[in-house]
Amino acid sequence: MVVRTAEAFRKKSSIDALTGHRVERIDSAAGRVTGQGPDGKAFALAYDRLLIATGAEPIVPRQPGFDHPQVAVVKTLEDAHAIKTRLATGAVKTALIMGMGYIAMEMAEALRLREVSVAMVKPRAELLPWLDLDLAATVRRELDAHQVQLYTGFDVARIDGGQRPLAVYDTNGTSLSADLVIVATGVRPNSALADAAGLQLGPAQSIAVDRQLRTSNPVIYAAGDCADAFHVVTGQRAWIPLALRANRAGWAVADHVCGKEVSLQGVAGTAVFKVFDLQVARTGLTMAEATQAGFAPAAVTISTSSRAHSHPGATPIQVHMVGDKRSGRLLGTQMVGREGAAHRINAPAVALHAAMTVEQFSQSDLAYAPPFGPTWDPLLVAANQLLKKMKEE
Amino acid sequence: MVVRTAEAFRKKSSIDALTGHRVERIDSAAGRVTGQGPDGKAFALAYDRLLIATGAEPIVPRQPGFDHPQVAVVKTLEDAHAIKTRLATGAVKTALIMGMGYIAMEMAEALRLREVSVAMVKPRAELLPWLDLDLAATVRRELDAHQVQLYTGFDVARIDGGQRPLAVYDTNGTSLSADLVIVATGVRPNSALADAAGLQLGPAQSIAVDRQLRTSNPVIYAAGDCADAFHVVTGQRAWIPLALRANRAGWAVADHVCGKEVSLQGVAGTAVFKVFDLQVARTGLTMAEATQAGFAPAAVTISTSSRAHSHPGATPIQVHMVGDKRSGRLLGTQMVGREGAAHRINAPAVALHAAMTVEQFSQSDLAYAPPFGPTWDPLLVAANQLLKKMKEE
Repeated sequence: MVVRTAEAFRKKSSIDALTGHRVERIDSAAGRVTGQGPDGKAFALAYDRLLIATGAEPIVPRQPGFDHPQVAVVKTLEDAHAIKTRLATGAVKTALIMGMGYIAMEMAEALRLREVSVAMVKPRAELLPWLDLDLAATVRRELDAHQVQLYTGFDVARIDGGQRPLAVYDTNGTSLSADLVIVATGVRPNSALADAAGLQLGPAQSIAVDRQLRTSNPVIYAAGDCADAFHVVTGQRAWIPLALRANRAGWAVADHVCGKEVSLQGVAGTAVFKVFDLQVARTGLTMAEATQAGFAPAAVTISTSSRAHSHPGATPIQVHMVGDKRSGRLLGTQMVGREGAAHRINAPAVALHAAMTVEQFSQSDLAYAPPFGPTWDPLLVAANQLLKKMKEE
Repeated sequence: MVVRTAEAFRKKSSIDALTGHRVERIDSAAGRVTGQGPDGKAFALAYDRLLIATGAEPIVPRQPGFDHPQVAVVKTLEDAHAIKTRLATGAVKTALIMGMGYIAMEMAEALRLREVSVAMVKPRAELLPWLDLDLAATVRRELDAHQVQLYTGFDVARIDGGQRPLAVYDTNGTSLSADLVIVATGVRPNSALADAAGLQLGPAQSIAVDRQLRTSNPVIYAAGDCADAFHVVTGQRAWIPLALRANRAGWAVADHVCGKEVSLQGVAGTAVFKVFDLQVARTGLTMAEATQAGFAPAAVTISTSSRAHSHPGATPIQVHMVGDKRSGRLLGTQMVGREGAAHRINAPAVALHAAMTVEQFSQSDLAYAPPFGPTWDPLLVAANQLLKKMKEE
């Protein structure tokens, strides 16, 4: 994470970064924003072009007990420091993590490495609903192997902070105890200001922007986790708040405001995370998303070796690949393995940008050397099998 | 390496594999091959379709001394076993490797791991002439760090096997001594039979084939290291004898002979090798190859981090990227790093198959997580800088 102070912005870039200033209203007719400064005094600032980069904020349940000091969210660097400080006291023996997404998984690993007992809970039944079942089973085994307890179908109703450790109750009255509760149940876009200003919203209440990052008001831009993007596979708006997209959008706004030509292709939904020794990666659509988007998807899941079979140190690598039976297009890929999944996922990601068919992708001249994979890369094994299946169905 | 016996072919696949039969002539007018069987008796076999899969053979210099038993080539499994057996005796303290290609590098590593002193020699001045100079310098440092001595400009004139250790002389009379000499100076296609049968030859005397693997005689196919392929960037014939291409061509011949539709896209020149702790990868064209093929190339070389800067264990990763100033197309990419180079190269490889521009590639939604790379993947950093350079020039 990169942290720069307001002072640095002023000195290095002549940018007047007004910290402590809360914008409360966008007056798009007058071309100005109004709000409260650090001393409680009202301020107003005129603009020719406005950029909304309000990000996203963690979703914190409204149920009783979430305001307890032993309940923490993980969004800012300060949040992380606060958790670290708490762990350093040695008072945290057990932690309960709400959520089973990327951040939740990374927290589980970080806590287990510090020998804290970890339980993870979520209301839904699936561990990672977007991941193919066979691949998700591998992730579950990895969590099991590291003594992370998983409670799916556990819908938190309230936290009783009167006890020590805290008692976390689900809607059925079952309870789990923990010294620390970490809320990692996702984020929502900070779009209230934009909404109040009458700007069009996109998926999940994110701010709708065009390929030049302009909102429905062409002098107002939005970029980062608050804004949406076009999905290169569906062509439809999508809200996938990840770092590269946010960063790229910021640069693109600056370019466009400065008169450069900008037209963002959009996102492929590429993501990767590490959980203990596993790499979990995805790009493009799942079977469910593909059906939802109107495709006629077929999918295969294969398991092969991360290295040439004769090479010492080879471990299993799983690939799930989705294609469209009507157009032949590659729609998505998921991978789980101990090595070679995180960076391999970029090949199908590029193929999605190029709208390649599975057949075209299957002919890719991918790299081979015994320490790095079998002669037929796991991605090619999956593509070949998917091709066969798409022809049969 | 996969080894199957003739017996297994007979039993499992009903394929009559006639080992010990040397084909000496293709009589394409009569549709038959003739030669000598194991007992020295002549044989003749008729064909409807013929596949030439004669592979490639190591180039062994004709200078005096190369027939000495302490001079070894590395092509077959037997060659490797023979070297291993020799090493096991403990009599090999020093080895001299002729050549500095993939095989030579892998041999250098294998020998150093067994604590044999290693010197590598080649006549030309460049360590890896196809690799950008900055990236090649990193490889040289890695070899230095592992006490591999490099003698470029050393053109072997003869080996004096009368001495123990052997004395290897260059054309200037300088000599190096070694207990074992390993010849890894590349391979040449076994195309003499095809040539004698009047079949068209391609680059480096390989057998020219079309996208269905047919030679200039449409009932005769050629596949594997003996045959050429089309290069997806130049559209021209290329001879790049690597395992995936050879394997894919074999399957394609079988498909085509059986009446399936086949049209191979060709090769992107993707390759990777490991030398000690370094991964060295390439795809597409070098600056020199791009100029040669009629492009107007520009290139950048960048160095960035293999992980997010805050992440422990990050190491440098270098990317060299080549684009065409006229069309904007991505032409090639090279990478060197301790992690993340081998599999990352597949993303630009796919982009080459899709004939993407550098601008399109620069917009790819590549995976990001701190353990696996910076927010802007090294490939994107290179693409962004190359884009800038292509616009300026």
